[in-house]
Amino acid sequence: MSVIYDKVALIGLGLIAGSISLAARRAGAAGRISGTARSARSRSAARSLQLCDDITDNAAAAVRDADLVVLCVPVGAMGKVMAEIGPHLKQGAVVTDVGSVKQEVIEQVTPHLPAHVHFIPGHPLAGTEQSGPYAGFAELFENRWWLLTPPEDADPAEVSRLRRFIRALGANVEDMEPGHHDLVLAVTSHIPHLIAYTMVGVADHLTRVKETEIIKYSAAGFRDFTRIAASDPTMWRDVFLTNKEPVLDILGRFTEELFVLQRAIRMGDGEYLHDYFTHTRAIRRGIIEAGQDTDAPDFGRSAKPPAGKVD
Amino acid sequence: MSVIYDKVALIGLGLIAGSISLAARRAGAAGRISGTARSARSRSAARSLQLCDDITDNAAAAVRDADLVVLCVPVGAMGKVMAEIGPHLKQGAVVTDVGSVKQEVIEQVTPHLPAHVHFIPGHPLAGTEQSGPYAGFAELFENRWWLLTPPEDADPAEVSRLRRFIRALGANVEDMEPGHHDLVLAVTSHIPHLIAYTMVGVADHLTRVKETEIIKYSAAGFRDFTRIAASDPTMWRDVFLTNKEPVLDILGRFTEELFVLQRAIRMGDGEYLHDYFTHTRAIRRGIIEAGQDTDAPDFGRSAKPPAGKVD
Repeated sequence: MSVIYDKVALIGLGLIAGSISLAARRAGAAGRISGTARSARSRSAARSLQLCDDITDNAAAAVRDADLVVLCVPVGAMGKVMAEIGPHLKQGAVVTDVGSVKQEVIEQVTPHLPAHVHFIPGHPLAGTEQSGPYAGFAELFENRWWLLTPPEDADPAEVSRLRRFIRALGANVEDMEPGHHDLVLAVTSHIPHLIAYTMVGVADHLTRVKETEIIKYSAAGFRDFTRIAASDPTMWRDVFLTNKEPVLDILGRFTEELFVLQRAIRMGDGEYLHDYFTHTRAIRRGIIEAGQDTDAPDFGRSAKPPAGKVD
Repeated sequence: MSVIYDKVALIGLGLIAGSISLAARRAGAAGRISGTARSARSRSAARSLQLCDDITDNAAAAVRDADLVVLCVPVGAMGKVMAEIGPHLKQGAVVTDVGSVKQEVIEQVTPHLPAHVHFIPGHPLAGTEQSGPYAGFAELFENRWWLLTPPEDADPAEVSRLRRFIRALGANVEDMEPGHHDLVLAVTSHIPHLIAYTMVGVADHLTRVKETEIIKYSAAGFRDFTRIAASDPTMWRDVFLTNKEPVLDILGRFTEELFVLQRAIRMGDGEYLHDYFTHTRAIRRGIIEAGQDTDAPDFGRSAKPPAGKVD
């Protein structure tokens, strides 16, 4: 495959940046990759993995002459990072990000964007519960979705070039409106994560049941909650703080719905429960028939790191 | 392997009974297997699969001369079934069940037990979201837990024989006190199922987001909720109605905990969220270190049916 961007700069060196670098190299999609991270530990890990061609603690140096800059920091740090690199961006550079929330990132980043730069926000729907440079692997994006939320006045040629780069990493690209993205992700990812955190917290408080016992016997449900609840705390704190409205909206609906089921249990209303469960089963069957899922359970984490990677 | 019970009778012919029959045959653990089901459709499916040596609509006939009787009906039907077969049980027969709730089953079944019969309640922690005789497969119990809750005065020789039979099916056996079983399962299985049902219900009510869209983009969490929420409605209705107290207890703790996190999100209390998520991550790491889980995600459903099985 041919080089799509002569120089790619990765701001932040965690699981996603590491995987982008490995996947871009494998595809030959980047001429040169520079990386920067605030933490000395991340930089030194990335260096020992030879994750980038050059690694610096100076974000301004990292983005110099870069044709593509990818912001791979937690959502809450995007604005600050953009303010830092803005003045050093190459004329006509493309800036994208990998944040799980889009409206807030756009609001944070836009004020610091030089006029000569193209900002095309993005979000790869891929990850594991691991974090840090060691967690990256080249296959992370294979057959996963990577959503872009290009502004209406985005340069079509630059959007199309970024799409080609993302496809070269193995992902499927689709466009979405930022507000819609944030609502869809609240349902599909943010609330399920919050539920998993909550359930693990509940189990931890139980004194009558040992944790080891809970894990040992969790044949149907709990074990993957603990996996999800091991996701990066900073990233997820920022997701909840910056996607507050959709999260609180869906959460309100969720507890409302849960209370109705709870009341049916308390009242012994078997008919209500049976009807409800029959309906959700029909939804699942509709999904299978629509070819949207297979019988292979993976909790959305089918892309697995190669053996031997540890964090 | 040698025959452990000359005749095994399966009452109810769904996923679990079908799998018991296939696994017992494979192991040569049963001399003869009889089966009965209330539904003509299940009986005819079981017949076409040649799941048992004889299949009848007459439960009394099925248990005649049986050395082991396995009650494989929804928890709410156990008492009724026991009342029906009680008078026809062989002297010294062992009766067990596969219900997901133990205290209520014991209460329902015990009044109908003849004095000459050994009742050793059980619960295989295995299943899929499929149901019916076609869903059974011989590998379902491999390396899964099968909990027994033998009464204090149980005949040790009979308990030990039943354990041998269960091990021949591929499962690992452990004993547990019935009340403790019901609490542990409320945490590990019942509440996670209720949450999954609820979340799928919430998504279904959203008019701004299409279901296909939710599934398509559910890279991290939601998709397996739909799988769990496709589980058998009758079985799960009965679980919630018969394990009411532990379920309502854990549910109360869950919503309490969720409200605290919801409030932290609303108030923008990033420190609280970060601390909480850091703690749950530590729990997960403790679990990995204790060797209680691997990196392979499966939502507790690692045992997969062979290709070609459909319901």
